[in-house]
Amino acid sequence: MRDVAIIGIGLTRFGERWEHSLRDLMAEAGLSALTDAGINGKDVEALYAGIMASGRFVGQEHIAALLADQLGFDNIPATRVENACASGGTALRQGYIAVASGIHDIVAVGGVEKMTDVTTSEATTALGGAGDQEWELNQGITFPGLYALMARRHMHEYGTTVEQMAAVAVKNHLNATKNKYAQFRKEITIDEVLNSKPVADPLKILDCSPLSDGAAAVILAPLDIARKYTDTPVKILASTQATDTLCLAERGSITGLKATAVAGEKAYKASGLKPGDIDVAEVHDCFTIAEILAMEDLGFFKKGAAAKAISEGETALNARLSVNTSGGLKGCGHPVGATGVKQAVEITMQLRGEAEGRQVSGAEIGMTHNVGGSGATAVVHILERTN
Amino acid sequence: MRDVAIIGIGLTRFGERWEHSLRDLMAEAGLSALTDAGINGKDVEALYAGIMASGRFVGQEHIAALLADQLGFDNIPATRVENACASGGTALRQGYIAVASGIHDIVAVGGVEKMTDVTTSEATTALGGAGDQEWELNQGITFPGLYALMARRHMHEYGTTVEQMAAVAVKNHLNATKNKYAQFRKEITIDEVLNSKPVADPLKILDCSPLSDGAAAVILAPLDIARKYTDTPVKILASTQATDTLCLAERGSITGLKATAVAGEKAYKASGLKPGDIDVAEVHDCFTIAEILAMEDLGFFKKGAAAKAISEGETALNARLSVNTSGGLKGCGHPVGATGVKQAVEITMQLRGEAEGRQVSGAEIGMTHNVGGSGATAVVHILERTN
Repeated sequence: MRDVAIIGIGLTRFGERWEHSLRDLMAEAGLSALTDAGINGKDVEALYAGIMASGRFVGQEHIAALLADQLGFDNIPATRVENACASGGTALRQGYIAVASGIHDIVAVGGVEKMTDVTTSEATTALGGAGDQEWELNQGITFPGLYALMARRHMHEYGTTVEQMAAVAVKNHLNATKNKYAQFRKEITIDEVLNSKPVADPLKILDCSPLSDGAAAVILAPLDIARKYTDTPVKILASTQATDTLCLAERGSITGLKATAVAGEKAYKASGLKPGDIDVAEVHDCFTIAEILAMEDLGFFKKGAAAKAISEGETALNARLSVNTSGGLKGCGHPVGATGVKQAVEITMQLRGEAEGRQVSGAEIGMTHNVGGSGATAVVHILERTN
Repeated sequence: MRDVAIIGIGLTRFGERWEHSLRDLMAEAGLSALTDAGINGKDVEALYAGIMASGRFVGQEHIAALLADQLGFDNIPATRVENACASGGTALRQGYIAVASGIHDIVAVGGVEKMTDVTTSEATTALGGAGDQEWELNQGITFPGLYALMARRHMHEYGTTVEQMAAVAVKNHLNATKNKYAQFRKEITIDEVLNSKPVADPLKILDCSPLSDGAAAVILAPLDIARKYTDTPVKILASTQATDTLCLAERGSITGLKATAVAGEKAYKASGLKPGDIDVAEVHDCFTIAEILAMEDLGFFKKGAAAKAISEGETALNARLSVNTSGGLKGCGHPVGATGVKQAVEITMQLRGEAEGRQVSGAEIGMTHNVGGSGATAVVHILERTN
């Protein structure tokens, strides 16, 4: 297995992109990444595209072949992967495997979702397909409901408060104000979160990530030739993935995600690192409680200790550990298939020193953490600055 | 890169399986494959599942994690891949890469589709997502229409006749009568095809593969340990994939599929074989014209010569080359995500000498050919008997 590096990145602005189609967004991010790597479509040997539910959102499947066509790739293998909201992270891992194995040298990885062409009700139903449709969605529980169950149990077992959860949203919105790609570039306060519209008690609308349109792309190459393309290759130290039951009711505990814990442990083992070595992390804050679970499951804080630590600023920009500097899913937006790839783009910007007003000083090691559904899939990457 | 072998196979009966859900079918095929390999779920290190449009057919995405859960796998990486009707073949190729690279030893590959829980109109629309939704489906052209265009042009350029196309369906139905897993176990005649209901001129209903429910699975292992699990490992000599434009109008020619030709050439190169070395092939006959195109694009016959050869029996069971011994998509059925994996199951049965009444005498080398949409994806595998 060869070392693999990210040699190019591309991103669209996330948001309600009414004026742009799915293929516009894909092409914009893809072309940016090719330009950033200094290559063109003919140089790409394989493509992996992460998208969750394009069939239901825009009536189009077979997205990888479409993307290859749009970008002028040359009859190369192109594969869509789908693991719900972890589709992007999964695509990155498949791209990593393709390069690490020696099968391909230059591999493109894209993530995209166009969620605002359907009604909110249709979108909620489509997203419900990420959980157990027979045992959960058909019984009336949507995604905010599933995470509300986790939040309520976490409050019961560890004394976590709604104010502490709100602090996650406040932090991530503040970070998003410094990111030109973010959907919500405005600060919010704890009181605004607490007084916002209830969605699934105890979660309010400002505890929830939004419906978004957007795309992200990265170009991968073997590390040993990466400097032909860029002065700032970012090395992938670990790429790991794990699963859990789809249905929440079948799990031993719902105050943590086992898939995150397993993928995280594997990533630390593969890289030889520990949580304290991470300088900057993008974690999957689809709901505020999800960031709290992630901080605990990934070993950054003891079980039950993350909510207090976050609310006291320990994961703010340039604090002990900078978390969701992009604004996270909450502030930057969550076009589901794009999110896992966007996380890698953000960490690459941080490790290259290109994160402008949200730059983490001296960032050397970063992590991405991408969750599918209510935790049936988790994908973790650890990235390292090389320049 | 290590040599990879198929050490276990599983298959459900294809058809209108009203009494079984998507997860029932997945579990049946998966458990059969585990049993055939003599292992259990805890032995499996990774899973790839091919499914095209479960979101639209049954409201469920995130199928790979669901399948891993159903089969008792142990928090392993599980990934859905989707390349329209080539989803199954693509899943097999990803499984192959995972084992060949050395990342995993025992990998499960599944394919499934449950297509009969929606109306035919809904299914047709969902399948349209495999083509170019904006430039084709939204303009009113469905899949039979796209292949009818190819058929009409092939007739114009090469004198191919509707009787010759009908002969493909007649052959494949005859083969299907000998396959207990097949959807249509009845013979048909040329006249019955020609007099069947027109769908998209010149294609009649009996030129078209059906809507089907079904699942298939294979278990992969490195060849050097395969005999621990089975006396009859089947070696994967080549696993290749290629793309083309999604939209038919953008192609230089529509009397062949360039993706098939490219994937085929790569497969011959990887294996050091030529078309004449293949004893048995499962090719993608979603419509009768598609089998004719495949025979030419894969180099079995010169351009324009396949239709006559097929109608004269050259690809009948135990003729010069046995094609679609399972009954193909036309006779065995076409649960789209399952098809590419089912093709590998059929070839494995043939190379093991377990194909019962449809056994190809002395079969040593087999090929599978799986197409996505109207040819924007093609996946080719070449398999070899080792015992």
